[in-house]
Amino acid sequence: MYAVVKKRRDVGADISTVNMPQIRKDEVLVKVKAASICGTDVEIWNWNEWAQNRLKKIPFIIGHELAGEVVEIGGDVTAVQEGDMVSAETHIVDGTCYQCRTDRMHICQNMEILGVDRDGVFTEYVALPERNAWKNDPNLDPAIASLQEPLGNAVQTVLPKDHTEDIAGKNVAVLGCGPIGLMAIAVLKTLGAAKVFATAGGRNKVRMELAEKIGADMVLNAREEGKNLVEIVRDATDGNGVDVALEMSGAALAVRQAFEMLTPGGRVSLLGILERPLEFDLNEAVIFRAATVYGIHGRRMFQTWYQVKGLLSKPDFRSKIVSIITHRLPMKDVARGMELINSKQAGKVLLEPGWK
Amino acid sequence: MYAVVKKRRDVGADISTVNMPQIRKDEVLVKVKAASICGTDVEIWNWNEWAQNRLKKIPFIIGHELAGEVVEIGGDVTAVQEGDMVSAETHIVDGTCYQCRTDRMHICQNMEILGVDRDGVFTEYVALPERNAWKNDPNLDPAIASLQEPLGNAVQTVLPKDHTEDIAGKNVAVLGCGPIGLMAIAVLKTLGAAKVFATAGGRNKVRMELAEKIGADMVLNAREEGKNLVEIVRDATDGNGVDVALEMSGAALAVRQAFEMLTPGGRVSLLGILERPLEFDLNEAVIFRAATVYGIHGRRMFQTWYQVKGLLSKPDFRSKIVSIITHRLPMKDVARGMELINSKQAGKVLLEPGWK
Amino acid sequence: MYAVVKKRRDVGADISTVNMPQIRKDEVLVKVKAASICGTDVEIWNWNEWAQNRLKKIPFIIGHELAGEVVEIGGDVTAVQEGDMVSAETHIVDGTCYQCRTDRMHICQNMEILGVDRDGVFTEYVALPERNAWKNDPNLDPAIASLQEPLGNAVQTVLPKDHTEDIAGKNVAVLGCGPIGLMAIAVLKTLGAAKVFATAGGRNKVRMELAEKIGADMVLNAREEGKNLVEIVRDATDGNGVDVALEMSGAALAVRQAFEMLTPGGRVSLLGILERPLEFDLNEAVIFRAATVYGIHGRRMFQTWYQVKGLLSKPDFRSKIVSIITHRLPMKDVARGMELINSKQAGKVLLEPGWK
Amino acid sequence: MYAVVKKRRDVGADISTVNMPQIRKDEVLVKVKAASICGTDVEIWNWNEWAQNRLKKIPFIIGHELAGEVVEIGGDVTAVQEGDMVSAETHIVDGTCYQCRTDRMHICQNMEILGVDRDGVFTEYVALPERNAWKNDPNLDPAIASLQEPLGNAVQTVLPKDHTEDIAGKNVAVLGCGPIGLMAIAVLKTLGAAKVFATAGGRNKVRMELAEKIGADMVLNAREEGKNLVEIVRDATDGNGVDVALEMSGAALAVRQAFEMLTPGGRVSLLGILERPLEFDLNEAVIFRAATVYGIHGRRMFQTWYQVKGLLSKPDFRSKIVSIITHRLPMKDVARGMELINSKQAGKVLLEPGWK
Repeated sequence: MYAVVKKRRDVGADISTVNMPQIRKDEVLVKVKAASICGTDVEIWNWNEWAQNRLKKIPFIIGHELAGEVVEIGGDVTAVQEGDMVSAETHIVDGTCYQCRTDRMHICQNMEILGVDRDGVFTEYVALPERNAWKNDPNLDPAIASLQEPLGNAVQTVLPKDHTEDIAGKNVAVLGCGPIGLMAIAVLKTLGAAKVFATAGGRNKVRMELAEKIGADMVLNAREEGKNLVEIVRDATDGNGVDVALEMSGAALAVRQAFEMLTPGGRVSLLGILERPLEFDLNEAVIFRAATVYGIHGRRMFQTWYQVKGLLSKPDFRSKIVSIITHRLPMKDVARGMELINSKQAGKVLLEPGWK
Repeated sequence: MYAVVKKRRDVGADISTVNMPQIRKDEVLVKVKAASICGTDVEIWNWNEWAQNRLKKIPFIIGHELAGEVVEIGGDVTAVQEGDMVSAETHIVDGTCYQCRTDRMHICQNMEILGVDRDGVFTEYVALPERNAWKNDPNLDPAIASLQEPLGNAVQTVLPKDHTEDIAGKNVAVLGCGPIGLMAIAVLKTLGAAKVFATAGGRNKVRMELAEKIGADMVLNAREEGKNLVEIVRDATDGNGVDVALEMSGAALAVRQAFEMLTPGGRVSLLGILERPLEFDLNEAVIFRAATVYGIHGRRMFQTWYQVKGLLSKPDFRSKIVSIITHRLPMKDVARGMELINSKQAGKVLLEPGWK
Repeated sequence: MYAVVKKRRDVGADISTVNMPQIRKDEVLVKVKAASICGTDVEIWNWNEWAQNRLKKIPFIIGHELAGEVVEIGGDVTAVQEGDMVSAETHIVDGTCYQCRTDRMHICQNMEILGVDRDGVFTEYVALPERNAWKNDPNLDPAIASLQEPLGNAVQTVLPKDHTEDIAGKNVAVLGCGPIGLMAIAVLKTLGAAKVFATAGGRNKVRMELAEKIGADMVLNAREEGKNLVEIVRDATDGNGVDVALEMSGAALAVRQAFEMLTPGGRVSLLGILERPLEFDLNEAVIFRAATVYGIHGRRMFQTWYQVKGLLSKPDFRSKIVSIITHRLPMKDVARGMELINSKQAGKVLLEPGWK
Repeated sequence: MYAVVKKRRDVGADISTVNMPQIRKDEVLVKVKAASICGTDVEIWNWNEWAQNRLKKIPFIIGHELAGEVVEIGGDVTAVQEGDMVSAETHIVDGTCYQCRTDRMHICQNMEILGVDRDGVFTEYVALPERNAWKNDPNLDPAIASLQEPLGNAVQTVLPKDHTEDIAGKNVAVLGCGPIGLMAIAVLKTLGAAKVFATAGGRNKVRMELAEKIGADMVLNAREEGKNLVEIVRDATDGNGVDVALEMSGAALAVRQAFEMLTPGGRVSLLGILERPLEFDLNEAVIFRAATVYGIHGRRMFQTWYQVKGLLSKPDFRSKIVSIITHRLPMKDVARGMELINSKQAGKVLLEPGWK
């Protein structure tokens, strides 16, 4: 079968033919119907510093955001059947470490990740442990179905602690309008946030327009507003500042602004990964402000999946999410997809079967 | 000035002329612009058993759901000014008891209630402690502004524990379609609930139609469905049952159904007041189901007010809420309003100035 | 090997010889070092109504509270080794139902229970799924190790919701002084509760003395105090009532008292199973009191196990727990153990190897 | 009357005679029985950078940790009487800002602090708003009573979020052995923490000995252990790291270590104030670790007071707390007290009446 294979410790990846995967007794074989490109895939493609340090075993098939159809099941599998439409929870966990046994399996001590530590989904068929196969509504568009995993990250960022954080009727800022930031805006508007402020670095106009279309009440260009940005948000919230700030850009400036625009006693979720350590005034940012801060890494398994399922049952929400897909390409054009994202001209890029 | 006064320990109340209230240094005088009729007002009017036991001091002016304008402020008042549009938090608390000092002032040990323990709002002017005057957006329609207090109860029922309970993407049932039940449906749809099931006793068709209009995904007539009702809900939730059930009717049958349709580990909020003790199977309803149950009484001060404010900033939500008002009458027709509610032909009834 | 086998749908059980269990690839074989008698075992022995309805497959080996040594492991087992000292989490779950996938596997929809649905531990060797084998500190006394499961129930009752409920510096009542009630008293005193009130039916003097010994600040005989009981607790808490009440008796009177002695906004945990539905005033007990109620069934897997482990690392706590064991008998005297419990003369009864 | 007055914008303060305070209608007059020296008092004495920036109105009487007797009450006062023994909640709040109205009055937008923004307690008599007077048990030793406010900070650090954070059976590190750090150790041991690790800079031997005496399971000298410190903690926790880390030193190194020794998904409370912004790796510290971080500033009013009251009802806890007082001096020797703290030879220093 065809696959996008990372073969060399260098930029790019190759479209190659590889053997079909053999499934174990507790695995299922999934025929890929749609796969979307994640920022992690771009980092692996670009072969940045993170990728150079993180990736141990090469070659491997890249990609992990999936929608597909089960075409074969292992002998011990009971929860999924042939013909089921599924998506993949990318995190493969041991189930017995301290984190797994205390409702935090998304940060398992012995995590394997699809498309990073084992063969991924930019291919024709992929083997998946039964427990990682999430059954979709058969009527759900595969394009949307493949977005459920990053959507789960957005939900986790909005609702980090046992999914019970408070958004209803509150003012919220989203710093960073990448795909997960855009999804977070959609989630916030659907969960009854009062005002949603979106900030963006200013270079990717496509994403700023999407933020507005999806429902942000105010979209602020960080480059243009400069030092006024925090003041603008404060003025628009009776001087109180936002109740919740979601940092989804990884920019040091945005991290600082997230705290500056926060009302005392408010909450910040940190999802964006920074390029390097930052100079940080813990006193003013966190301590004097009595802030609560959540580090966001992965998504709770499987509460976020159920929440995403519930949200996707709402037509308004589905249409917001689908609007984030700006490009649909055949798999063979994966390089073009990477280029679109690198050049800041895309929202989310979807790959569909098509190898020749 | 004119006022609706409960003068006798008997059915009804009189429209009388009374003296203007004198305000204390920490009070404000409010000119009434709109007042809505609460179920409690109906009980006081009907002089039912609860009213006979509860009401100590007669005569007094009835009514407590208010929108008005501040026309005078006491010497110590700083947070409110003349000309401000305000609504009233009905609960007047001591501020020093155990409950007040531990973030639960809505269940103060020495509570006084407007229109129950002291003069209420079905009149021309009312004196209000500064702390109980909630400043409204000056552009907010007084009709909607007067509904904020019961709307706070709906929010408290949906989000009872520090307002952090989980609704996003979950299936929820609302048992009982009185005004607060209808408001809860509007709140749930605005907070991202997946499916909302509404059940009603079946006699008040107006309210069942409103439930559907406001966005309930399924409206079930408890009388017609009988024993199938729980099964219908279960079938519509993959067999799991609802995640959250809000009991807002006070009917013993609905209390039992709330638990029967609940998924294990789910949550029930109890707002509806029962006529008498019920025969209750705690084992099956609560213990084996590992259910969490919240008794709902009042609304957290003042978080629910902020949440209501945030929700009312959303046009869709405002239009759902305003649709619950089925009748607008001048104050002099208060008896007609009571009759409409008693005869099950109304959603919410609004009273506006108009005494002759 | 020898085993205590429930052979007939009638009172009692037989000591018989049976075949050694064969383990599957994901199971371990455990040699029993100690086993304690649970109330459920007594119900199965007594063949009461619950047991008659619940038990499907007979014959089977009874008992589930275990400490033992791993003597063999299946081919897929990695988390446990031969020679490890283990206890058993009794609840064997499917891992894929809605409850299992949302951090509530202790109320799995397809639960199997050791010593109820499959062979238990009142025997010489028992087969256990790897995931249900909890590794003990090799130095932990097997007698105490076998008590960890009911101790987990006590912890779950004290800390029901994600184990974060508030006990520190609060006043708490424990209604019912059976073994789990006694354990709850030990837990509460170790978690910094201010005053702990214990109530008991009055017939089992052994247990009332244990309650005092373990550290209850006041032990009240419900029979003798009668209607004064609630008043005594209220007087001893500045008139506020207790912050938390744990109902661990299953007596209808105690359920009512738990709510009557509760401060408004307080919390009740219900663990005790009632013999029949009760007449219950939901208004006064729950709604007007704005109470939170938790149904307790099982114990969260495996947070409670980690918490029990942490608590047992404290010598004071260990000595409180060991004091609850009033009798140690060889397995062959299981009938004597049941008799001691039925005649209200025992705290906890421990069984140790010894068949002839 | 005599008072310790900050008269000049310079190091030190003077013992002077000043007029007796006049109370308002909502205030009480308190005769000082004991007052303890807080780190803030030392900063004001030392006239460090923070003090120079923070203090607006000079002269004023310093000190805020108080135990005293009510000798006069204002006309509107109802909750306190002459003869009552009281302590002071130092934070005087407006009651109407966003924070005050949403259960966060300890971070009021218009806060005044006793001994900082208005006259404090290192004197003979002090005027206190009724709401800030906390009634003590008349039998409570004034020395201990004066420590309740910093003890409330320790409780807030241990239990930051609605006081429901989880300590029971968990491993916890306390970084920094100042008085509040020592109090936190006492609180942790009383709330059932499994192992408590204390770290200290190494210069103040008195405090390290106190940490051990109060019950820390391991006291680590950060200077001596250097890079091994984190490894030692990790080894002592089955390799998992601590569940909770409390940063109470304000040292940048300790902040980093707090995160390094944390188990994924664990929690850090930050109380110690840093001298300057630090270089901080948010990715490794917070995001990849999925950590929750609480900024701690003040103590929740008045839940922490009730919790402190409950804990102080326990003799073991009282004796731990009293052991932190290493010096008792008459008020006139306030300079000697400051010197003892500055020279790292003291735990907590208590001042008692005695002016000549």
